[in-house]
Amino acid sequence: MMSNALDELRSVVGDGRVLSDPDATEAYRRDETPAVDPGHPRCVVLASTTGDVAAALAWAQRHLVPVVPRGGGTSLAGGATATDGCLVLSTAGLTAIRELDARNEIIVAEAGVLNADVDRAAARHSLMYPPDPSSFEISTIGGNLATNAGGLRCVKYGVTRDSVLGLEVVLPGGQILRTGRRTVKGVTGYDLTGLFVGSEGTLGVITSATLRLRPRPATYPPTLAAGFPSFGAAARAVGAILAARQRPSLLELMDSATLRAIDQWKNTGFGADVQALLIAQDDGEQADAAVALMRDSCEREGATTAEVSDSEAESRQLLELRRLAYPALERLGATLTEDVCVPRTRLPDMVQRIERAAFRHDVFIATVAHAGDGNLHPLFVFERGPPAVPAPVWAAADEIFRAALELGGTLTGEHGVGVIKRRWLAEELGPESMAVHHAIKRALDPDGIMNPGKVL
Amino acid sequence: MMSNALDELRSVVGDGRVLSDPDATEAYRRDETPAVDPGHPRCVVLASTTGDVAAALAWAQRHLVPVVPRGGGTSLAGGATATDGCLVLSTAGLTAIRELDARNEIIVAEAGVLNADVDRAAARHSLMYPPDPSSFEISTIGGNLATNAGGLRCVKYGVTRDSVLGLEVVLPGGQILRTGRRTVKGVTGYDLTGLFVGSEGTLGVITSATLRLRPRPATYPPTLAAGFPSFGAAARAVGAILAARQRPSLLELMDSATLRAIDQWKNTGFGADVQALLIAQDDGEQADAAVALMRDSCEREGATTAEVSDSEAESRQLLELRRLAYPALERLGATLTEDVCVPRTRLPDMVQRIERAAFRHDVFIATVAHAGDGNLHPLFVFERGPPAVPAPVWAAADEIFRAALELGGTLTGEHGVGVIKRRWLAEELGPESMAVHHAIKRALDPDGIMNPGKVL
Repeated sequence: MMSNALDELRSVVGDGRVLSDPDATEAYRRDETPAVDPGHPRCVVLASTTGDVAAALAWAQRHLVPVVPRGGGTSLAGGATATDGCLVLSTAGLTAIRELDARNEIIVAEAGVLNADVDRAAARHSLMYPPDPSSFEISTIGGNLATNAGGLRCVKYGVTRDSVLGLEVVLPGGQILRTGRRTVKGVTGYDLTGLFVGSEGTLGVITSATLRLRPRPATYPPTLAAGFPSFGAAARAVGAILAARQRPSLLELMDSATLRAIDQWKNTGFGADVQALLIAQDDGEQADAAVALMRDSCEREGATTAEVSDSEAESRQLLELRRLAYPALERLGATLTEDVCVPRTRLPDMVQRIERAAFRHDVFIATVAHAGDGNLHPLFVFERGPPAVPAPVWAAADEIFRAALELGGTLTGEHGVGVIKRRWLAEELGPESMAVHHAIKRALDPDGIMNPGKVL
Repeated sequence: MMSNALDELRSVVGDGRVLSDPDATEAYRRDETPAVDPGHPRCVVLASTTGDVAAALAWAQRHLVPVVPRGGGTSLAGGATATDGCLVLSTAGLTAIRELDARNEIIVAEAGVLNADVDRAAARHSLMYPPDPSSFEISTIGGNLATNAGGLRCVKYGVTRDSVLGLEVVLPGGQILRTGRRTVKGVTGYDLTGLFVGSEGTLGVITSATLRLRPRPATYPPTLAAGFPSFGAAARAVGAILAARQRPSLLELMDSATLRAIDQWKNTGFGADVQALLIAQDDGEQADAAVALMRDSCEREGATTAEVSDSEAESRQLLELRRLAYPALERLGATLTEDVCVPRTRLPDMVQRIERAAFRHDVFIATVAHAGDGNLHPLFVFERGPPAVPAPVWAAADEIFRAALELGGTLTGEHGVGVIKRRWLAEELGPESMAVHHAIKRALDPDGIMNPGKVL
């Protein structure tokens, strides 16, 4: 039966689009999340059209084969982890930009278009696509939508959801659903667009999206880089900037461990007086004045250095420091990147709780934060080796998640639940919400074949 | 059985909170929508706490009594129309502002708080609550959330959904669900907040919301009022302003019929050279320069007058012209306020289609538009009399709805589907979306008792 079923799949989506040889499917078993133990897919479908996706989902429903949708495979929460016997459905081949309507500031992009390519297409019309996860050069719009990805510019422009007007989604069974609209306002029916964004492939597969673009600032924004004697002082500066009602377009914070890792790699020469670095940009009409005001706030809060770029090149160079954080830390060992979010005034408390957890469980944690949003990424570094996160790391992570909830925050600001945070889900959501989640899941995917083992 | 059931209801929510005398329930049968024929409620519950709402919904589920939730009763789509034998559940008595956290820029307001009172509470901390439907002085936050209300400032700040972080919702059966969070980012689980916002009381009753506030501009924004020889010319000026990538905080358009109605009432003295009036504000840091640029755009597009306010009083006075539109038109007869939205570049086309429909069906239509969002309110005026919309009005409305869809738009930009647009719903959504809507409705309200006959 099985080989007959695969033949049938090949006949509907095309022979060359189906991989079933274990050597070929190996590359589709895992995403960027360390230490999850993926299953062995039965097959991989390399879709290149919505029709391919629909045919694959119809086939999967007929044979009750679990489906694991996959974009760029950059999930840090195990969202694209294969399960045994599943169909991995790659939408990376849906690469068309179907339309760019510059006057209405919208773009219709298929799921496999890279985030950076959407922004580059927009740039040709002096527009931009604001959501910019750190993976922007390698992650797809489909994955960004499935996880409601964030990024550095969210502090001003909001998350992925805030830039989506409508979707094309293939439902379990293969029906093609269109949600939302092309207009900036509209309340006809339920917000199905919002329901699918961030649902991590558990309700259907997004194949295309109508995205909202925004005017691109005429010049590259100036950058402030301010060093502080402690993470706490830097977090207080963030508080001062926000209390002054400034609206930076980027407000990032790196802790001492992160700076040391960058320094070891790139000889940046941070002195002992720089135990935390705040990087800020403003892309408004009075950017220079705004950045100068932020520098003043930093100096009042005890910044030991505070440098404002005086050219685009220097501005890009200062921001590059932030971009180096992850690769610098990944040089040190295996990493688990966590992602909690707290009300932004609780940033200093959360930082203390992270330090306490690291100390108590004797684990190495470096923290990078989208500080303006209260979104912290405590990054655990541990010895490379077997594909399992060491127990003390999970123990510290557990303590950090509970601390985030206690401080009025959330388990995940932008990476999603995936496989790695499922066990904490009910703690944040509570029984009523879990029941509603399960009711919606059953309503849209009664056989539970869409990305099983993720989120719920 | 029936009177026993009412006694039971009185015993759980309190005797004084239940109205069942027809004289007393009469005032709760209809909202602001003309020409719908409401049913006779069995009873009205005047809830003042979430517990009252939960008790009422548990009772309704036990006895399978349909529930019509009601806020300020200002719906223009019949969203709060009573059905025969229903329980009208008023949340107008849930009037507490549970919390205002100025540093995190959030407010937790119960469903019955008036929109204007949320904004006034925010103003005491130099903050604002941006969504401002025309009914802001009399509509409740609960109703605003249930319909995902828009308003004049949406063009810059987005609709109600864009200002909501989390909800407290009572589900059919009485369970209390909390959705969302207090943080500005968060992706734990499905976007239930978005699902309930705009669901028009068909899935549950919103009792409280965590809303996002924004910095209040330090001064009242300056206003531009520009008169044009035709609606088409004014619509082209809107296009020019947006093509120049300006970001006004308000961009409103009134047609000739509206201006004549205001003039008849208030003797504003618009000349024959003013057949359309564009009103714009900018609340940014360089507001005066921005408004001057908009004036230039208007003059280039043939404005016959273009006046910029030179004081707060004058600015408020110019905006007041816009606020007079509805009451001025309501003086002329019975009105049906419609609410289509098109991609904003199609504004001139939509205006033509409205004029054509008015001519063809010989009905009187005045149009007011949130022009920056492409959201038009064609307002039908007809003879007061029996509570039924004349057939030619519906025929013209039908033509207008279809034209909006044809132009890539939507049936309703901000008022909702309610009872009056149900028959066009499937036309916009299509069969797959209708099936998903019904599946979600069944999942959350299996007995179909929540606001029956609305939306779906």
